Amino acid sequence: MTIIHTVAGLRAHLEDVRGHSIGFVPTMGALHEGHLSLLRAARAENDVVVLSIFVNPAQFDDPSDLAAYPRTIEHDVELARSVGVDVVFAPDVDEVYPDGFATSVSVRGLVAETLEGARRGAGHFDGVATVVTKLLMAVLPRVAYFGAKDAQQVAVVRRLVVDLGIPVRIAVCPTSRDDDGLARSSRNTRLSPEERDRALSIPRALAAVETAVAAGETDAAALRSRATDILGEGGTAPEYVAFVDPLTFVPAPVLERPVLMAIAARVGAIRLIDNTVLTPGGR
Amino acid sequence: MTIIHTVAGLRAHLEDVRGHSIGFVPTMGALHEGHLSLLRAARAENDVVVLSIFVNPAQFDDPSDLAAYPRTIEHDVELARSVGVDVVFAPDVDEVYPDGFATSVSVRGLVAETLEGARRGAGHFDGVATVVTKLLMAVLPRVAYFGAKDAQQVAVVRRLVVDLGIPVRIAVCPTSRDDDGLARSSRNTRLSPEERDRALSIPRALAAVETAVAAGETDAAALRSRATDILGEGGTAPEYVAFVDPLTFVPAPVLERPVLMAIAARVGAIRLIDNTVLTPGGR
Repeated sequence: MTIIHTVAGLRAHLEDVRGHSIGFVPTMGALHEGHLSLLRAARAENDVVVLSIFVNPAQFDDPSDLAAYPRTIEHDVELARSVGVDVVFAPDVDEVYPDGFATSVSVRGLVAETLEGARRGAGHFDGVATVVTKLLMAVLPRVAYFGAKDAQQVAVVRRLVVDLGIPVRIAVCPTSRDDDGLARSSRNTRLSPEERDRALSIPRALAAVETAVAAGETDAAALRSRATDILGEGGTAPEYVAFVDPLTFVPAPVLERPVLMAIAARVGAIRLIDNTVLTPGGR
Repeated sequence: MTIIHTVAGLRAHLEDVRGHSIGFVPTMGALHEGHLSLLRAARAENDVVVLSIFVNPAQFDDPSDLAAYPRTIEHDVELARSVGVDVVFAPDVDEVYPDGFATSVSVRGLVAETLEGARRGAGHFDGVATVVTKLLMAVLPRVAYFGAKDAQQVAVVRRLVVDLGIPVRIAVCPTSRDDDGLARSSRNTRLSPEERDRALSIPRALAAVETAVAAGETDAAALRSRATDILGEGGTAPEYVAFVDPLTFVPAPVLERPVLMAIAARVGAIRLIDNTVLTPGGR
């Protein structure tokens, strides 16, 4: 396994494997089982697996969140090795955003401006879109792997890849969950045991809504109300409980086709997100 | 020579020549000798030459300018054939900007916001940056060729290619001029003989400033005044006469290193631009 810190170094290294299929997993490090599931998928489907680790300042609106974001590079490298990663690309901030950097990639419309886009500021998805474009250009993978937990990020990335015609396939892997149902997130390490217990109301709310939809409920307001009750009773503070088209993020007041249900909620100082796709009439 | 109208068709066609070097000349059609000089350079330096012809609505702030922009596709195709182009990529607007298109590439800072950026509106260089990125993704050339006449466009493209790390070399070919000195432009066909005569004050102003710089003048204000006088006496209405760093477009009040002198002027209804790089102390 090779660890590379510069774009030029990465490009030179990958020059030798052009023609082979490259699978790419972009991350902000603090790897957990969710990331490993992406890396295993990349390993199974490609000749070469590239993992990037870059905590992207451009997508944090909150400096304290950026400062608190866990950084565990040595552990990440060990985990990467354990799942057969070939190349770890770990640039520093100056390598990605050198002096004079002046370009941004923006996706407009509800897909980027609602929910996480509204809560985390207009710059959040611009930061995501710009760094993902730049990483895709550096790696030129055949496939890039993203986790379904970040559903809106996935939709924004899909949009920009289609719109700019970047020659890469976007693969989305299912949300990885701990045994208690909590979606795996690098931020979970910051939860106290008591907070973690409260956080479990998030997967409970998703499950309750799935059950209601399976029983025939299709009214988003009724489903939202049920979820909000569960979140509140569980001791989390919901920021939103949304029912939207999974690609465009246009709100869906009635479930007539598969709809993304997305939750953001605060547990103490920690902000968590989770989601599920609801299919009316059963799957 | 193959003419292709879709990105998918282009990609399939170029799949067979991956591994060969591709030279790419993006244009808005209405080909003239300036474009042909780019195509000849691409022909000399690459295995495969791709020409794109696309009048990009996103970079026009003025609908009447867009409507009046000359479209001469049959003639363009003949000229392309005459210089040995392999592939003409001529997408229509819906192919480049399909329903739901929502992504833009923006370069910020003086390089995109001053001079042409200020005069043609903030959207102009966003439109250029977005379409150039998209065309580069569609063609994936080794080298893309641009004309020095569009100096600010070149600087914006260089900036985004560096910033996003798009793996392409940007080659800049000298401005092509008619025998009378007028920089070749698709818009020249719209000049009456009398207007063309007035337009010649633009290259005269550039030449006079070059002479003054060769004689030791380094004060931008004095040089601007000389150029403005010549343009006014010649019957053109200057929009700007600027002296800036060729990469950053930061104004250069004193010529201490090579400086780009850029002119935009109106002759009747036609807006023309031209430029030269001034090297104090001779070249």
